[in-house]
Amino acid sequence: MKLATLKNGSRDGRLVIVSRDLAHAVDAAGIAPTLQAALDHWSRCERALHTLADALEAGTARGAFAFDPAQAMAPLPRAHQFVDASAFLNHGDIMERAFNLTVKRPAGVPILVQRQADDFRGPCDDYPFPSEADHCDYEGEFGVIVDDIAAGSTAAVCARAIRLVVLLNDVSMRRFVVPELQMGFGFINAKPATTFAPVAVTPDELGPAWRDGRVDLDLRVLRNGELVGHPNGAEMDWGFGELLAHLAYNRDLRAGTVLGSGTVSNRRAEQVGSACLAEVRALETIAQGQPATPWLRFGERMRFEALDAQGRSVFGAIDQRFVAKEAA
Amino acid sequence: MKLATLKNGSRDGRLVIVSRDLAHAVDAAGIAPTLQAALDHWSRCERALHTLADALEAGTARGAFAFDPAQAMAPLPRAHQFVDASAFLNHGDIMERAFNLTVKRPAGVPILVQRQADDFRGPCDDYPFPSEADHCDYEGEFGVIVDDIAAGSTAAVCARAIRLVVLLNDVSMRRFVVPELQMGFGFINAKPATTFAPVAVTPDELGPAWRDGRVDLDLRVLRNGELVGHPNGAEMDWGFGELLAHLAYNRDLRAGTVLGSGTVSNRRAEQVGSACLAEVRALETIAQGQPATPWLRFGERMRFEALDAQGRSVFGAIDQRFVAKEAA
Repeated sequence: MKLATLKNGSRDGRLVIVSRDLAHAVDAAGIAPTLQAALDHWSRCERALHTLADALEAGTARGAFAFDPAQAMAPLPRAHQFVDASAFLNHGDIMERAFNLTVKRPAGVPILVQRQADDFRGPCDDYPFPSEADHCDYEGEFGVIVDDIAAGSTAAVCARAIRLVVLLNDVSMRRFVVPELQMGFGFINAKPATTFAPVAVTPDELGPAWRDGRVDLDLRVLRNGELVGHPNGAEMDWGFGELLAHLAYNRDLRAGTVLGSGTVSNRRAEQVGSACLAEVRALETIAQGQPATPWLRFGERMRFEALDAQGRSVFGAIDQRFVAKEAA
Repeated sequence: MKLATLKNGSRDGRLVIVSRDLAHAVDAAGIAPTLQAALDHWSRCERALHTLADALEAGTARGAFAFDPAQAMAPLPRAHQFVDASAFLNHGDIMERAFNLTVKRPAGVPILVQRQADDFRGPCDDYPFPSEADHCDYEGEFGVIVDDIAAGSTAAVCARAIRLVVLLNDVSMRRFVVPELQMGFGFINAKPATTFAPVAVTPDELGPAWRDGRVDLDLRVLRNGELVGHPNGAEMDWGFGELLAHLAYNRDLRAGTVLGSGTVSNRRAEQVGSACLAEVRALETIAQGQPATPWLRFGERMRFEALDAQGRSVFGAIDQRFVAKEAA
């Protein structure tokens, strides 16, 4: 089942079901007005949503219409918790090697960072930022949205609470990353609003590409139409279930919590490319002594997409332009 | 105006208006079903809420009933963003002196940390935690809840968007604090769910105690009925407006964002005491070479309250028992 949220002037938009080929949609308001409402009562809504999705797939859903990703908000336009991992250790290793950094990470402990969830951006919305001197970067990631998880749950229990899989661009302003990491309290100005692909999918939609709590799909990253990377999500050093269990050690996680994988990064980065400029520039620094690829400039366009084995877009595409924010 | 959220079996509870003396309440569902709904449409709801509050104060509100804080959830049982500051530099100075720590803070930059907002706890609910070896601590704080704030807003504009003032206990598991700060990505296991006093108040309710975006009230902290500290909120090194402006540098803040002050801490800590055990133990370490006051044990009770100049409770009290979480 595939779900999206369309703009309707409200903060949470309206929930629709999207066909597998992303061509059509049907309003799901009769079941739940918003995706958060569906997640709040998933066990009550799930069957009705699936029935409607089946009807849409069979061409029998009344009121079906053409799905326009430009009208989509983030699947959850706002959530109550957004945690981002850095679960591809390869990425951290590259950054540490290039810039002589050291993350003091206790053995076995994953990197997780609490992030704001109040203002997720839609896949085709322009992304304004105040200054190119802030070193604007993208990070292509997979993520999950979960049901309620009780404190102390095992990784297996957590994995079973994963309701949806998403694709996101964790926009980063690199000028602030190192100073904010050195303070120790995580990201504030380094990580403004996050953008999501239009469609959230239930794990079963991924078929064999959903494996060990990981997304075994290439994440295609295009800068101004040119493919600059297509790393695969299967190399995560922790599965989403394990990351959730760490998070839930001493507290309940509530329905609608979004957990990102961290920038997708592969050990064959020289062959498959990277999902963020920081990694590209770090590899350039290791190879050539200095970075060559520039940060994002105003007017550039970024596209993120994942295709299934048949070449069909799974989540739809993030396709957004980065623009200057006019002074307030 | 004073607002609270009562338990009704739903995740967001039901919004009520509470009388100034906290004795009575009246349902506000006719105006907004939940506090988040009121904040989502504050300009539309504010006048009607004030009118109902005036009627409650005058004894003419229909359906008024006795207000029972034990039935209260947090004013916002869940929010879309919770940021905690550490805006009393005195606290950080004490911690750094006692334990030879250094926070690498760029000049003028406040400490802010993104936190989870999915599961705020009510004022009288038991607080379960898994192990006394995690070094359970409290942090008494003031906080604010804001309306929409556009990216790039000045501190003055941000201050005018403050809709409500709250009192909270930022529960902390100290065993994880230093390792998580050293990783750099903020708090995960160090900061489980946060508890709020039952009543959120509009800034005008504080009268002259709301000054320069700060709360000039003593925060009374009682451990098992004994007053252990009463530091004042006016010593914040940044006002809430300034903290919000830092946060909003490159992104919009959406209605319902909660911002905490950080543990209230005064330069006369030896006289007025502290709002957290970490600071008590740090002062003991500085004075005597080692800490003497123990961390919280299962079964202990903590109370947090702020009284106005006439000795009346402003926000109601957090009055909670810390208990063992049974193994899952």
